[in-house]
Amino acid sequence: VNLILLESQEIGADGVARVEGERARHITTVLKSAPGATIRVGCIGGGRGTATVDAVSLERVDLRCVIAAGDARRPPIDLLLALPRPKVMRRLWAQIAAMGVGQIILTNAERVERNYFDTHVIAADCYRPLLIEGLQQAADTYLPNVSIHRQLKVLVEDHLEALTGESQRLIAHPGAAETVSDAVCRTAHTAVLLAIGPEGGWNAFERDLLGRHGFAPVAMGPRTLRSDTATIALLTLAHDGFARRNSRYSYPHA
Amino acid sequence: VNLILLESQEIGADGVARVEGERARHITTVLKSAPGATIRVGCIGGGRGTATVDAVSLERVDLRCVIAAGDARRPPIDLLLALPRPKVMRRLWAQIAAMGVGQIILTNAERVERNYFDTHVIAADCYRPLLIEGLQQAADTYLPNVSIHRQLKVLVEDHLEALTGESQRLIAHPGAAETVSDAVCRTAHTAVLLAIGPEGGWNAFERDLLGRHGFAPVAMGPRTLRSDTATIALLTLAHDGFARRNSRYSYPHA
Repeated sequence: VNLILLESQEIGADGVARVEGERARHITTVLKSAPGATIRVGCIGGGRGTATVDAVSLERVDLRCVIAAGDARRPPIDLLLALPRPKVMRRLWAQIAAMGVGQIILTNAERVERNYFDTHVIAADCYRPLLIEGLQQAADTYLPNVSIHRQLKVLVEDHLEALTGESQRLIAHPGAAETVSDAVCRTAHTAVLLAIGPEGGWNAFERDLLGRHGFAPVAMGPRTLRSDTATIALLTLAHDGFARRNSRYSYPHA
Repeated sequence: VNLILLESQEIGADGVARVEGERARHITTVLKSAPGATIRVGCIGGGRGTATVDAVSLERVDLRCVIAAGDARRPPIDLLLALPRPKVMRRLWAQIAAMGVGQIILTNAERVERNYFDTHVIAADCYRPLLIEGLQQAADTYLPNVSIHRQLKVLVEDHLEALTGESQRLIAHPGAAETVSDAVCRTAHTAVLLAIGPEGGWNAFERDLLGRHGFAPVAMGPRTLRSDTATIALLTLAHDGFARRNSRYSYPHA
């Protein structure tokens, strides 16, 4: 954890936040912060700053916070992900948030098993703490927006434009000519939407549907990777493409 | 699983391999292969090919294999990794093998807890099946070489050159000017050795030691990632650098 995240309503008008549970234990036992110590903090959806540890008890830590005003910067990368199996998805939440994404759009596909949508792993009370864990690791404050769609066709035809706006739409496809990093590097779009299929791949109908809605195929090497590995690899290459385009790109740091 | 891997001694002089356990179950219940069906196979350390399913019983499958002669191609990327905590390392084995590495060199560092070296997760009978799982996912046959070193100084001064030969040595460092992909793209070295530190980073002595032994700092973005996420990101960028240098680079496919 490189930053302790606070909900805006946890911070009082006097700038003092009282944290309990996991975060309090982390401050006292991992960071070993005593009263007077300074730690890095951030406000979910807001700025980052520092806090002075005011008081420490077994179960509670009082933090006197000085946090920059303004909203968190949204990463320029959105993810359209065919829902992986629950065990893999559970591991992915924190890693995706740590890599930095604006939005996580989970969808059904022929090769996604229907019962994946009935699991707790896509409930907000399960994934929100995992996203926050990833943000604390990466010292970011932007909580990705999450939406869940049981019909790919309805999502792509009716909702995707409102969700993502004007993005460069890319679909990972073995054998495509251009790499993700090159594709992101060359366009003028300010944001990118990456589509990642299920373990067995999109079927012909789904590929065609996405192709007709502007998703251009990009290569990510010839190896077939598990969903979680592929997702991290693609996010890495997309961030690298932005960095090659603009040497000052260094999300989330200003 | 995109390829069933066989040990060379499992394949008889007549080309028939008898597989049991996990692989047999995978062939019958996931691939649903009946006698006469053709599946993709490979020989660990050797070539790839196909096999005809000859006989199927509850616990055993007979495969008549036709596998290309020759040795597996070694990926041009080696990893020098400060041993992550056991839970993270356990998850990493398959993912590293799926990404493609020639060699995994695990080392101690100040910020690695000593007891990590006493765990089962770095015993060959634990990691070898996990590496094979990753290779089967990526349809590769090259089993990475693994070595474990309890003293970074002894490793770097006395053993690293013999282990890796003439490699471009890179160390991930927040704030470095050049990105991993750019660094790999511009050099004439045929192989790269990537050093990845522990969660808390290398200490000053370790950074200096590695610097004096030719490790050049490269950036991988400003975010501090967990060891497993960072490892996948770095391997992705190194492969991408090779692909940018040579448009025909597409390890492991010829």
